[in-house]
Amino acid sequence: MKSPSAASGASACDTLWLNARLATLDPALPDLGLVEQGAIAVSDGRIVYAGPEADLPFPREAAGRVVDCGGRLITPGLIDCHTHLVHAGDRANEFEMRLAGATYEEVARAGGGIVSSVRSLRAASEDDLVAQSLPRLDALMAEGVTTVEIKSGYGLDLLHERKTLRAARRLGELRDVTVRTTFLGAHALPPEFKGDSTGYIAKVADEMLPALAAEGLADAVDGFCEGIAFSPTEMRRVFDAAKAHGLPVKLHADQLSNLQGAALAAEYGALSADHLEYTDAEGAQAMAASGTVAVILPGAFYFIRETKKPPIDLFRQAGVSMAIATDNNPGTSPLTSLLLTMNMAATLFGMTVTECLAGVTREAARALGLVDEVGTLQAGKRADLAIWSVARPAELVYRMGFNPLHARIRNGH
Amino acid sequence: MKSPSAASGASACDTLWLNARLATLDPALPDLGLVEQGAIAVSDGRIVYAGPEADLPFPREAAGRVVDCGGRLITPGLIDCHTHLVHAGDRANEFEMRLAGATYEEVARAGGGIVSSVRSLRAASEDDLVAQSLPRLDALMAEGVTTVEIKSGYGLDLLHERKTLRAARRLGELRDVTVRTTFLGAHALPPEFKGDSTGYIAKVADEMLPALAAEGLADAVDGFCEGIAFSPTEMRRVFDAAKAHGLPVKLHADQLSNLQGAALAAEYGALSADHLEYTDAEGAQAMAASGTVAVILPGAFYFIRETKKPPIDLFRQAGVSMAIATDNNPGTSPLTSLLLTMNMAATLFGMTVTECLAGVTREAARALGLVDEVGTLQAGKRADLAIWSVARPAELVYRMGFNPLHARIRNGH
Ligand SMILES: [Zn+2]
Ligand SMILES: [Zn+2]
Repeated sequence: MKSPSAASGASACDTLWLNARLATLDPALPDLGLVEQGAIAVSDGRIVYAGPEADLPFPREAAGRVVDCGGRLITPGLIDCHTHLVHAGDRANEFEMRLAGATYEEVARAGGGIVSSVRSLRAASEDDLVAQSLPRLDALMAEGVTTVEIKSGYGLDLLHERKTLRAARRLGELRDVTVRTTFLGAHALPPEFKGDSTGYIAKVADEMLPALAAEGLADAVDGFCEGIAFSPTEMRRVFDAAKAHGLPVKLHADQLSNLQGAALAAEYGALSADHLEYTDAEGAQAMAASGTVAVILPGAFYFIRETKKPPIDLFRQAGVSMAIATDNNPGTSPLTSLLLTMNMAATLFGMTVTECLAGVTREAARALGLVDEVGTLQAGKRADLAIWSVARPAELVYRMGFNPLHARIRNGH
Repeated sequence: MKSPSAASGASACDTLWLNARLATLDPALPDLGLVEQGAIAVSDGRIVYAGPEADLPFPREAAGRVVDCGGRLITPGLIDCHTHLVHAGDRANEFEMRLAGATYEEVARAGGGIVSSVRSLRAASEDDLVAQSLPRLDALMAEGVTTVEIKSGYGLDLLHERKTLRAARRLGELRDVTVRTTFLGAHALPPEFKGDSTGYIAKVADEMLPALAAEGLADAVDGFCEGIAFSPTEMRRVFDAAKAHGLPVKLHADQLSNLQGAALAAEYGALSADHLEYTDAEGAQAMAASGTVAVILPGAFYFIRETKKPPIDLFRQAGVSMAIATDNNPGTSPLTSLLLTMNMAATLFGMTVTECLAGVTREAARALGLVDEVGTLQAGKRADLAIWSVARPAELVYRMGFNPLHARIRNGH
């Protein structure tokens, strides 16, 4: 009797997708690395060939299974590299109050703002958090997302930050998706530390971060560097602790003002600096030099009616890598569509179709430190694919509120 | 043996939905006409009761079928009252060219613009048109749309306008949705009439409109009154013809400049005037006096990066009814989500949650002349319902790229 693995070993590959247009995102090819009349061969969850059908290194009869894609477009599985997807409750009531004319102060007096998200998250059980977050994850996955980053940051103490990160890990077990967790203890000052941000940052750096790192709950560390959040000096404290524990860093930087957050992130070799509306040329050059990815978040820009756009041209000139993400969160970006996010990046910021698609695949992988694993269609990468019922890549960016996903493949299945 | 209708007559109603929050949109109630712990009873496709469970005029045991809604929200089925849904091809290539820096002239030289949609539509068979348009209609219906308006206007001669309107009628037969057709011959000047807009308008008014009216293919008549399209004088010619054939009128008015299109529409007692970015106080007052609905189209505003917003405050002050629609079309609004359209109306124009939801239900019904039939949850109306997995109406407006539809009921099924 042959074992299943021996049976699989008898074929040149497990599955062969044929008759497809490929957007490989291969950096050695121009633009999206398009291949017409392409094929992808997968074995044991890895891509073993991605390129023209004509150059396939084995006869198609040697494949365990052959799928005719009918001319459809295949891209890498999409990657949402910046979300606060695990949260409790929503802030639709604040949204409604503001539309009805309430000021920010009136909203705050009524218990609104980030403090309301902290209150809701602390009150929710881990099971509640998982149950409330699953529909958001499912919405992303329905559009071909195969990897998603999830930040903590509404717990703001060890107990509730741990609960958040555990819920995030469980989402990755409940669904066929890669979840990368980020510890964002330095998101906001919790009510119990009012007036003592130094004390809170000490707790983040000396207690929470070491504990969560030891438990393996955080793949990276993030912070919110802004006048209304934490100073560059405070962020250094957190980044030094991350470094000491071998964790890569990211930063919410320069969203509402220019605190030189981009340069700070670059100095620490951050995987990414995110938002960046107020980043200047110096910041862009520092990011290019350190290989720090600029994560562009048009959903928040749109939702809170910002007017200052991130300096896309500066990033282009400096050669900064640009990713795009939903920033899914209840206060400033209740957005669960990467397709719509691409449309916003194009429409609001003038990013090109190539920049948009690279931004939710290859560059998003880079922003998570996963570019050797996913984000392009190349031999050796994990077989995370999205197959679309469209003729050209531009259609994925141009439409609004339409999902042309035909199939989503993760790990070759 | 009892006949089916006798069996049905034995029950107090066919179906009773219980344990729901109702947004009735009953104009006699404030705001959205919310009813907590509500019930809806339906017989023969009509609502026979909508109100508090406690006031149900018969015992629930008398219902043929009882559905427990688990506290979900029920709204009227959504109505998209302005679309160009039947079209051929897309204009993703133009979108891509413009993002890559091409000017409008370069796009035009490459064969882009509305003329490319005319060329594609004329080349498509009626079957092609139906097949290409169905996925767009399905996307709308997946979010609870039960009535959709579809305009012609890319054919621009009798043969191809007829083909468009026939395709629209067929969509209404293929899917469980009400389709209302609008003849928009006065959309653009076809290439063969270059330099002779008077000649083309004569053809629209004297040949195309009478023929299509006689064939029962048009429920209303629309035109594009703008510097780049047709003058108010030309629109009068078309409206007079519509009047002579007993057809109600609508108008694309004041989108890019103020040609007093709103006042013109009001003068003809138009069902609606649409776009209205440049409408002034006089226009708003005329619309209020004639009961002409202002159809707000934020998708086009967003997609073409307009900066002049429609005068929502003027409409409020004058008491103009406001509807909201996708304007689904390949050139300026490739949008197939009424939920996202509501979010845009709120985020971009500051429309309230009540205005947004009324705008895709009761006021949209008014803009189609159907408010006696659909658009509210009231006894006598057709039982077109949307049941949502949300607690409060604001959630339908606040989220972006998320579809919480639980069930869509049309004609009681
Ligand atoms: Zn964020
Ligand atoms: Zn239109």
